[in-house]
Amino acid sequence: MPDQPALVGPVEIIGAGLLGTSVGLACRRAGLEVALADVVNGHVRTASGLGAGRERSDGDRPQLVVVAVPPALLGEVIAEALQRTTAHGAVVTDVGSVKSAPLEVLTTDPEVSGQVHRYVGGHPMAGSERSGPLAASETLFDGRPWAVTPHDAADPAAVALVTELAELCGAVPVRLTPEEHDRAVARTSHVPHLMSALVAGRLAEAPPEHLRLSGQGVRDVTRVAAGDPALYGQIVAGNAAAVTQLLAEVRSQLDVLIDAVATGDAETLRDVLEQGVTGARAIPGKHGGPVTPTVSVFVAVPDNPGELARLFADAGQSGVNIEDVYIDHDPGRPVGLVELVVATDAAAHLRSSLDSRGWATHQ
Amino acid sequence: MPDQPALVGPVEIIGAGLLGTSVGLACRRAGLEVALADVVNGHVRTASGLGAGRERSDGDRPQLVVVAVPPALLGEVIAEALQRTTAHGAVVTDVGSVKSAPLEVLTTDPEVSGQVHRYVGGHPMAGSERSGPLAASETLFDGRPWAVTPHDAADPAAVALVTELAELCGAVPVRLTPEEHDRAVARTSHVPHLMSALVAGRLAEAPPEHLRLSGQGVRDVTRVAAGDPALYGQIVAGNAAAVTQLLAEVRSQLDVLIDAVATGDAETLRDVLEQGVTGARAIPGKHGGPVTPTVSVFVAVPDNPGELARLFADAGQSGVNIEDVYIDHDPGRPVGLVELVVATDAAAHLRSSLDSRGWATHQ
Repeated sequence: MPDQPALVGPVEIIGAGLLGTSVGLACRRAGLEVALADVVNGHVRTASGLGAGRERSDGDRPQLVVVAVPPALLGEVIAEALQRTTAHGAVVTDVGSVKSAPLEVLTTDPEVSGQVHRYVGGHPMAGSERSGPLAASETLFDGRPWAVTPHDAADPAAVALVTELAELCGAVPVRLTPEEHDRAVARTSHVPHLMSALVAGRLAEAPPEHLRLSGQGVRDVTRVAAGDPALYGQIVAGNAAAVTQLLAEVRSQLDVLIDAVATGDAETLRDVLEQGVTGARAIPGKHGGPVTPTVSVFVAVPDNPGELARLFADAGQSGVNIEDVYIDHDPGRPVGLVELVVATDAAAHLRSSLDSRGWATHQ
Repeated sequence: MPDQPALVGPVEIIGAGLLGTSVGLACRRAGLEVALADVVNGHVRTASGLGAGRERSDGDRPQLVVVAVPPALLGEVIAEALQRTTAHGAVVTDVGSVKSAPLEVLTTDPEVSGQVHRYVGGHPMAGSERSGPLAASETLFDGRPWAVTPHDAADPAAVALVTELAELCGAVPVRLTPEEHDRAVARTSHVPHLMSALVAGRLAEAPPEHLRLSGQGVRDVTRVAAGDPALYGQIVAGNAAAVTQLLAEVRSQLDVLIDAVATGDAETLRDVLEQGVTGARAIPGKHGGPVTPTVSVFVAVPDNPGELARLFADAGQSGVNIEDVYIDHDPGRPVGLVELVVATDAAAHLRSSLDSRGWATHQ
């Protein structure tokens, strides 16, 4: 990070949806001038009304253009932004979920390829089940990873500027090449989403009575599969090469697995399961640090508005930090089972503290 | 449920681990006499010390025997229990994760098959990351589904008794045939677990820098993959037929998916994703009722012991019921993003209530 901020604005944002408006709000919070554009004119009015900036006008000379449009339009809109700002040399970035395909559009277009050094891709790992400017927030990116993906010809000053934008939004910049980025999100996002959809798809065919046996595991595995099919379809299509390659690896492991289960090959089955344990543990822990050994304490909680508050107040009194919380919905009665994940060496103290306050706990 | 309780004890429990000891505690809570047996003698002492019952003795004449041993031993131990209790005709049940394979052991053994009307399988959908009697709790089954799986030749009085055990433990009985049960848990538990392991397995091979882009989605999808490989290996092996059949369906859908992504067939890709949405929504909602439309409210929370308590106290003041909670671990700084899932029509009120108390929220 430079000692002197290089990002002074104005910042132009193309696409005043959830991400674009949130970037605008964060830039305005930092005192930067923000100009907004959107094909849906109502979006600009809404975003302006929320304080995310003013409407773009013809005389604007943005220092930085942020393209925040749907995945399928990224290449085209980034190209337009580069061409339009050639005279004063603005830096152009985007917040799209895929990085190689839009870059390919730029480098293969002779009218734009000479300007591509001013483009540096970005991808904040933040979103919401909602979309549109009304869902935006200046805190949307707080503490989230924000991939910054310079290509070989990128201007180092442009890379620094885009990195500064990520920091200004409260995010944590993670530098990767566009190709690395696409392989990384195929692995950590797109393929997990698709496999979740395949597992959930099998539930769609099940008798309702069978689904009554659903526990927390299948709810966790299939949660992301409820996401918008149109958006995820575009994202996956835009990262087809990396996704296809990884899906082929999954398929080959699935063949190994099917063969192991069908033939009773316990050793191979166990190898697959153990590789799963290794992978699940490889996901970075809280704050990117090493994973603290944790254990779950379960507490039965009546399903009334005040009860969770009372539980967390009592847990707070114990002085134990709650690392994670899950609520396991019971199918038959108005009691929820709340799972408090805490450091292993703090569990006994938490339980005795909660038990003494009248909660029924178990591990 | 009969007007007069038919389950009066004594209850014999074979296997004083997590499930067996928890059943013992629940039976003792209801005033029943409980006799415990385990190949690990220390387990019986520990379970007795916790109040789950006394050690089994030779003169016992149990009304009900509950077999709570590892999956691979179920058939053998159930057979032994049926033979040993022939004189006074005890009902025998179990708490194992698979139902057809143990039943096959009983019906094909000429020394036991004449007694098999006294056996009715059971499977409480409850567990813990911990095992052994020290992890047990009389509340372990509270509100959980408990599959009761009578075979064709089962004595109706035995079915009623096992159903009563599930209710006495606080669980919700769900009646299925053994074959239906095995297909149901293949779909809602075993295959989701295996697919989670395959996705997690790909993470095991990833550069750590790529894993920094991990968001909540991949954490959810791979969470169950961290479970004990030895236990899940036994469970899957014991349900090989149903699991293999369903895995073959997944593979055929995976082939469709790979082809769609590789060839840019947006329509087929979207069909797969939409079937995933349908399936994810098919999982029964809270308390088994229809799914209430919900929305997520995100709140930035400093990572200190008292802060979650303060948040839930403030949320409680709003009168809005929290349907679900997720804590999204940020990789870079000591702020957690807490996701509160609430009924859609309550979100605006919750946000304004929290905002007025100084919390930064977004949707």
